Amino acid sequence: MSIVVRNIERADKAVIDGLAKCGVATVHEAQGRKGLLASYMRPIYPGARIAASAVTISAPPADNWMLHVVVEQLQPGDIVVLAPTSPSDAGYFGELLATSMRAHGGVGLVIEAGVRDVRDLTEMQFPVWSKAVSAQGTVKETLGSVNVPIVCAGQLINPGDVIVADDDGVCVVRREEAAEVLEKSRAREVGEAGKRDRFVAGELGLDIYGMREKLKTKGLKYV
Amino acid sequence: MSIVVRNIERADKAVIDGLAKCGVATVHEAQGRKGLLASYMRPIYPGARIAASAVTISAPPADNWMLHVVVEQLQPGDIVVLAPTSPSDAGYFGELLATSMRAHGGVGLVIEAGVRDVRDLTEMQFPVWSKAVSAQGTVKETLGSVNVPIVCAGQLINPGDVIVADDDGVCVVRREEAAEVLEKSRAREVGEAGKRDRFVAGELGLDIYGMREKLKTKGLKYV
Amino acid sequence: MSIVVRNIERADKAVIDGLAKCGVATVHEAQGRKGLLASYMRPIYPGARIAASAVTISAPPADNWMLHVVVEQLQPGDIVVLAPTSPSDAGYFGELLATSMRAHGGVGLVIEAGVRDVRDLTEMQFPVWSKAVSAQGTVKETLGSVNVPIVCAGQLINPGDVIVADDDGVCVVRREEAAEVLEKSRAREVGEAGKRDRFVAGELGLDIYGMREKLKTKGLKYV
Amino acid sequence: MSIVVRNIERADKAVIDGLAKCGVATVHEAQGRKGLLASYMRPIYPGARIAASAVTISAPPADNWMLHVVVEQLQPGDIVVLAPTSPSDAGYFGELLATSMRAHGGVGLVIEAGVRDVRDLTEMQFPVWSKAVSAQGTVKETLGSVNVPIVCAGQLINPGDVIVADDDGVCVVRREEAAEVLEKSRAREVGEAGKRDRFVAGELGLDIYGMREKLKTKGLKYV
Amino acid sequence: MSIVVRNIERADKAVIDGLAKCGVATVHEAQGRKGLLASYMRPIYPGARIAASAVTISAPPADNWMLHVVVEQLQPGDIVVLAPTSPSDAGYFGELLATSMRAHGGVGLVIEAGVRDVRDLTEMQFPVWSKAVSAQGTVKETLGSVNVPIVCAGQLINPGDVIVADDDGVCVVRREEAAEVLEKSRAREVGEAGKRDRFVAGELGLDIYGMREKLKTKGLKYV
Amino acid sequence: MSIVVRNIERADKAVIDGLAKCGVATVHEAQGRKGLLASYMRPIYPGARIAASAVTISAPPADNWMLHVVVEQLQPGDIVVLAPTSPSDAGYFGELLATSMRAHGGVGLVIEAGVRDVRDLTEMQFPVWSKAVSAQGTVKETLGSVNVPIVCAGQLINPGDVIVADDDGVCVVRREEAAEVLEKSRAREVGEAGKRDRFVAGELGLDIYGMREKLKTKGLKYV
Repeated sequence: MSIVVRNIERADKAVIDGLAKCGVATVHEAQGRKGLLASYMRPIYPGARIAASAVTISAPPADNWMLHVVVEQLQPGDIVVLAPTSPSDAGYFGELLATSMRAHGGVGLVIEAGVRDVRDLTEMQFPVWSKAVSAQGTVKETLGSVNVPIVCAGQLINPGDVIVADDDGVCVVRREEAAEVLEKSRAREVGEAGKRDRFVAGELGLDIYGMREKLKTKGLKYV
Repeated sequence: MSIVVRNIERADKAVIDGLAKCGVATVHEAQGRKGLLASYMRPIYPGARIAASAVTISAPPADNWMLHVVVEQLQPGDIVVLAPTSPSDAGYFGELLATSMRAHGGVGLVIEAGVRDVRDLTEMQFPVWSKAVSAQGTVKETLGSVNVPIVCAGQLINPGDVIVADDDGVCVVRREEAAEVLEKSRAREVGEAGKRDRFVAGELGLDIYGMREKLKTKGLKYV
Repeated sequence: MSIVVRNIERADKAVIDGLAKCGVATVHEAQGRKGLLASYMRPIYPGARIAASAVTISAPPADNWMLHVVVEQLQPGDIVVLAPTSPSDAGYFGELLATSMRAHGGVGLVIEAGVRDVRDLTEMQFPVWSKAVSAQGTVKETLGSVNVPIVCAGQLINPGDVIVADDDGVCVVRREEAAEVLEKSRAREVGEAGKRDRFVAGELGLDIYGMREKLKTKGLKYV
Repeated sequence: MSIVVRNIERADKAVIDGLAKCGVATVHEAQGRKGLLASYMRPIYPGARIAASAVTISAPPADNWMLHVVVEQLQPGDIVVLAPTSPSDAGYFGELLATSMRAHGGVGLVIEAGVRDVRDLTEMQFPVWSKAVSAQGTVKETLGSVNVPIVCAGQLINPGDVIVADDDGVCVVRREEAAEVLEKSRAREVGEAGKRDRFVAGELGLDIYGMREKLKTKGLKYV
Repeated sequence: MSIVVRNIERADKAVIDGLAKCGVATVHEAQGRKGLLASYMRPIYPGARIAASAVTISAPPADNWMLHVVVEQLQPGDIVVLAPTSPSDAGYFGELLATSMRAHGGVGLVIEAGVRDVRDLTEMQFPVWSKAVSAQGTVKETLGSVNVPIVCAGQLINPGDVIVADDDGVCVVRREEAAEVLEKSRAREVGEAGKRDRFVAGELGLDIYGMREKLKTKGLKYV
Repeated sequence: MSIVVRNIERADKAVIDGLAKCGVATVHEAQGRKGLLASYMRPIYPGARIAASAVTISAPPADNWMLHVVVEQLQPGDIVVLAPTSPSDAGYFGELLATSMRAHGGVGLVIEAGVRDVRDLTEMQFPVWSKAVSAQGTVKETLGSVNVPIVCAGQLINPGDVIVADDDGVCVVRREEAAEVLEKSRAREVGEAGKRDRFVAGELGLDIYGMREKLKTKGLKYV
């Protein structure tokens, strides 16, 4: 059955913005090393760094109909996350859809498939993380669903979850955990800042983290 | 049997130049969603956007002899398209061959294998679409053919066909169809321009394309 | 048994610097087309071009403990080369470890696995050649070894071997052969410079390399 | 946090056995073409055909500790489903663990990683669907969890869901939907049996399914 | 435009049967090492060895409608060859379609996508060479074409070309060249038979093929 | 420089035979989880289980000349191990070469490339572990070397090292360590036999290996 869920809960905007500043690696670590999408999900241009509320799509392979359906459901600060029901690298998305999404508040796309018009998308600075770049055209024949839980690039994504994405890839944070993860992420940043100074000064991780004893116990030999 | 076909027909220069301006996605759609090479064919640097007449090479794996043979057959506005007879990611091509090709009018390379000297090629702005970047050296021992039909990255390429290539990948247009495809491409651009304004204004694809009824008929439920 | 070898021999600094200027493609050819790592080893940003002494790590999959151990063993001009004992694309390395390595003279990383913080690493201009970009966190539970011979991306790397890396990928030069390879590389550059002028002037490789006779003997037909 | 959930609900045994007889393709279709794991999940030997209750494991890459933990949680008719937290093809599982699982009622394994002892497992007729065959040893250092929801080969698996697996691959059926899916699967089998006779007799799908009109409307031309 | 070409020419039955007996490796060599489909095309069970006339399908990704259309066009001794217009591993084909094809004389399938019901197909001994095994369901929404030239797994296939397939993979022979290729294949078999006896007797290829002089000239050193 | 090393040292026959009986998984574990070739190296038919002395080949891509050279260097009980200098899946090897090798005592082949005639090789029971099955023909133009150290599928192989191979894949044992590894392998087998009985009886690995305390310390919670 194909459905469009109209009303989803989203995380607090301040929390989302905070997560964007922390970035993927910090957030992923702070929440216990979970939520990272597969490493084949790459940005189409370097430098984008965002966090946004997931509006999800489960779509048939090489059929982008639901990308037109989803736009109406967007609110400012949303990112569309699309997973095909079987593998496809076709080009579901391009500059016109980006224009349409932006007009409705959409800030980006995560898609386990292909995109096209990357030159235009780069000029627009509309960020996309995808499995492929491909101009391959798609059809509009078979329904999918909007705002249902999906598995995208190995991770479960619920509508309203927070997507954090940058040059390192894409990470999902459960909506209910977003505030706590932000807190932990900031704590981690503070801890790393302190360590950075010590590393710059030449201190060793071996000493900063007190690893020498454990290494010795495990049997590491220096020869 | 290994042959070099000296005389091939090429499409009209004005048509080729027109297709370059339209770009891969538009041309691919305009000709009925055909002709796109596999998505693993990527540009070695961003921003190139060309159309050119294909001068084809069928070459043995890891043997770049025919790239020296092909240069003599180039005319201004040609692009070399090479497919190996069995898979290889070796570095068939680098800066010296690019220099030689450019001296004879060659404007780029499409190769289902590897290239090297990408830093130099980027500085020269000699565009290449390839399956891999690799410095792996090749030999000059076994013949191939020049200007025969080849299959490159999943598409049949005839000598003289028009190659359109940009950041989205590579598309082939049959020489005989080039003028008609250009016409359709331009029509498509006009249509898209009109829609772009409507999308910017916030109109939905659902309404622009009149999709609501069909979605309903197919059974899409809003909940 | 897990060991850290403290004292390794390194090649002469002038030789290493000379190899850096020649670049991967030239060095790889000059030493007889050997030593090139697999083409999936890609730089995380374009433009880096270095040569350095390999300090090697054999590490368990998704366990980056030995990257903390290795820093103490670095000398100015060293590059860390890490191979996991079974395939992993986890993010072993990021900005803090880069900061630490740089403080001890490390100039880069070659890793047959993943790295993260690529935005920061790009800003720092700390070059990395890796199989993947991934924020996936790693553990510190199982020992590996430092400065033992490893196989990384299909090539044997001994500690102290010279690593040459640029936009074309990564090549290893045996420490004992480095001076000779530099000499051959420079000879090759001189030869290529001469040929470049001839190519620019429109001479053909067919004539420069005297290939016409051999092509004819092999049976190439012009039609 | 690493947990072992001791008590999970399972589907009715008769339902599970019924699904086994229907097989993967029928069950997948009957439940609306959902639930199929990625096609790289392959049986280690041909001919196995089972359905069983999923006992799930989320495990670190190349660390098989939780496979020892899980055995205690097995009930007769269970199948273990393991997903690593980052990609690994290491050999988590072999003949001894199979022996242990069988002693506690386990009937098979689905693992998005590697297995070994395939000769012994084949002799034992202990079926495994895996991403790889690999003898690569694993460690027992880092905790995972047992009987938590996991994503395995692109599908969400809840503990207690029904796993159907045969030569075509692996499909998951939600525990709550199992009885209904069985009913639909049997209905589908009945429908297919009727059609089979007509196909054997030479009737065409074009006529059996009444496709000619729709094909014509869509524009199919016979030439 | 989607078309079904009803009348195609086929090669002589005796020639086709002769090619089947020669097998893929011999035929591929005999015709000058051309025509081999990519090595990811694998038989779903071992031991099949056939040659047949290609009836071709160009089909959309994950849409198997044209497989129903094609059956009506089959003649005894035909094999269906399907290439999707963009990559798909969905399960286009199973036991019912095989039953239908067999009823109309079809002897096998070559498909650059997925198939299912492999257990049933094995029992029926209906041979398939495919890129994947997958139960993933497909739709019937978008037209393709039957009996047009296609590119399948890297090779151009014209309707009526001869497909030779066995445990080594799949090779295409141009219809017009089939008789000549058969003759060359048989000559090759005779030559190999003579050599086989000499190899059994312990003679070396070095001597049988007279390679020692050429190896010496090229510079091979025995140490 | 291309060389053939005529005299290599081999391990003791009794040791090699002993390792064959232990199999890949046991030997790999017994020597400290090292030496395993990449998991894409698969047997062309199930059931083979051998150990043999490595006679190595470094060969150009798609050029099988050195396979003719190597036969003369074989002694009874040898296995040929071939690594191409750049990736290739061409069919270097088939039934005639197997016949020739067998006549000179060769017992198998490990090749990081393709093989053909798998039906004949299966009938002959000449075991091969390869990266691909492919009938693609190769040339005899460029020299390689015999009995030099090579890297094959991620592992360094020295001539005379012991290759252990079975349905789990391929493992290399250093010649100098072979006797010790056999001893450890047998000890491991004894240990496993004892454990097998306990597992059959229903004892848990948790108790046999005394894991409960360590799991608790690490923080595993039962809920």
